[in-house]
Amino acid sequence: MFKLVLIRHGQSQWNLDNRFSGWADVDLTEQGKAEAAEAGRLLKAEGYAFDVAHTSVLKRAVRTLWGVLDGVDQMWLPVITDWRLNERHYGGLTGLNKAETAAKYGEDQVKVWRRSYDIPPPPLDRAANESVSDPRYANLDASMIPDTECLKDTVDRVLPYWHDVLAPAIRSGQRVVVAAHGNSLRALVKYLDNISDEEITELNIPNGVPLVYEFDENLKPIRHYYLGDADAIAAKMAAVANQGKAK
Amino acid sequence: MFKLVLIRHGQSQWNLDNRFSGWADVDLTEQGKAEAAEAGRLLKAEGYAFDVAHTSVLKRAVRTLWGVLDGVDQMWLPVITDWRLNERHYGGLTGLNKAETAAKYGEDQVKVWRRSYDIPPPPLDRAANESVSDPRYANLDASMIPDTECLKDTVDRVLPYWHDVLAPAIRSGQRVVVAAHGNSLRALVKYLDNISDEEITELNIPNGVPLVYEFDENLKPIRHYYLGDADAIAAKMAAVANQGKAK
Repeated sequence: MFKLVLIRHGQSQWNLDNRFSGWADVDLTEQGKAEAAEAGRLLKAEGYAFDVAHTSVLKRAVRTLWGVLDGVDQMWLPVITDWRLNERHYGGLTGLNKAETAAKYGEDQVKVWRRSYDIPPPPLDRAANESVSDPRYANLDASMIPDTECLKDTVDRVLPYWHDVLAPAIRSGQRVVVAAHGNSLRALVKYLDNISDEEITELNIPNGVPLVYEFDENLKPIRHYYLGDADAIAAKMAAVANQGKAK
Repeated sequence: MFKLVLIRHGQSQWNLDNRFSGWADVDLTEQGKAEAAEAGRLLKAEGYAFDVAHTSVLKRAVRTLWGVLDGVDQMWLPVITDWRLNERHYGGLTGLNKAETAAKYGEDQVKVWRRSYDIPPPPLDRAANESVSDPRYANLDASMIPDTECLKDTVDRVLPYWHDVLAPAIRSGQRVVVAAHGNSLRALVKYLDNISDEEITELNIPNGVPLVYEFDENLKPIRHYYLGDADAIAAKMAAVANQGKAK
């Protein structure tokens, strides 16, 4: 049986501020760092160990991974970073306070932008898109750098990473941990569990909680579960769901 | 012109305790973490940025690298870890207090073990060598795992990493940072600057200070220098030199 451990980054400063982050490189809060460390302790206590670690090129995911590697006492693992695991690009909403955006455009419009499968937020002007000149994307063809993304766009760039990198590693027997983001993990989970375009938008992955997938020999998921206290996890999932509401 | 940045890990708990560390996986002290962060700030202030980061499989070097990557705001860089960058294996001295060992065997004998080029400390019994069953070395042929090393042995395993990995990366234009250890860096520096077997044993690389090498197009060193306050660096180098003295 194969296993994969996914983890959404711990609380970031813009999670706390209720702002759309997308590709903005927002750091973890102290709570977020503590969540990452706790996830590492939990994995260690449950006997988890890994052969390879993957994360995005955004520091909130990298720092979460560092906390996990520290917790499982495997800081010696190589860390592979890839833009394909980045959060969904939030386009022109990047940096805006979610409650303010909801008050301005209405909760329904925010919900459309946050949760519709194929309607992206308004795009950034290319000239205003800082990712284009960011050295971390320097090896990418500029046409690959989005100005906005709907979840479908995120799925379209996450799945090649699954098929080309993660799935072969798991199939070869490697124990893989992936630290990523709400929507890049949603994209992966949608594929793994064959979740419909409608239902996936209601799936809320909590911050900083290890999500374990077990697969059969064909990498068909057998089951999945979160590690940790069930009530605390449910509270975190509800908090994510409520982020788009006006206050 | 090509550049390479080397950094010895910040102060570890066993640096503080004056114990031989070798391959024991000792963590940084708070001072060591602060040194790593300061090195990162210094590199950032001097305009350094990197394309790839290499370190050993020992956490004091990995955590130092993390501090550097955080400081230069490049946490998104991939981190490549390799046992060839490990500290010299201190054999049967591993874990012993250096001052106690000096009091017992005499300063001269400790100096021989610490600083002779080709006389290794007494070896660990293979059965007592925890590295043999450590998962981080699981992909290594067991015959490659040392029970002790003299500096010459360390040179012999560091240089292949230089020739096969680091030099080609630098030659291809990549900006490389290497976080490693007193003796693995001494091994590299010996080769780069063609330092004699006798002289290399007197070279003391301070903890947590970026050491910059500049090379011509054939990777022949043009010059090297430490970044930071010269007096503070001299004091650190003297502290390393005095570690083997009885107190």
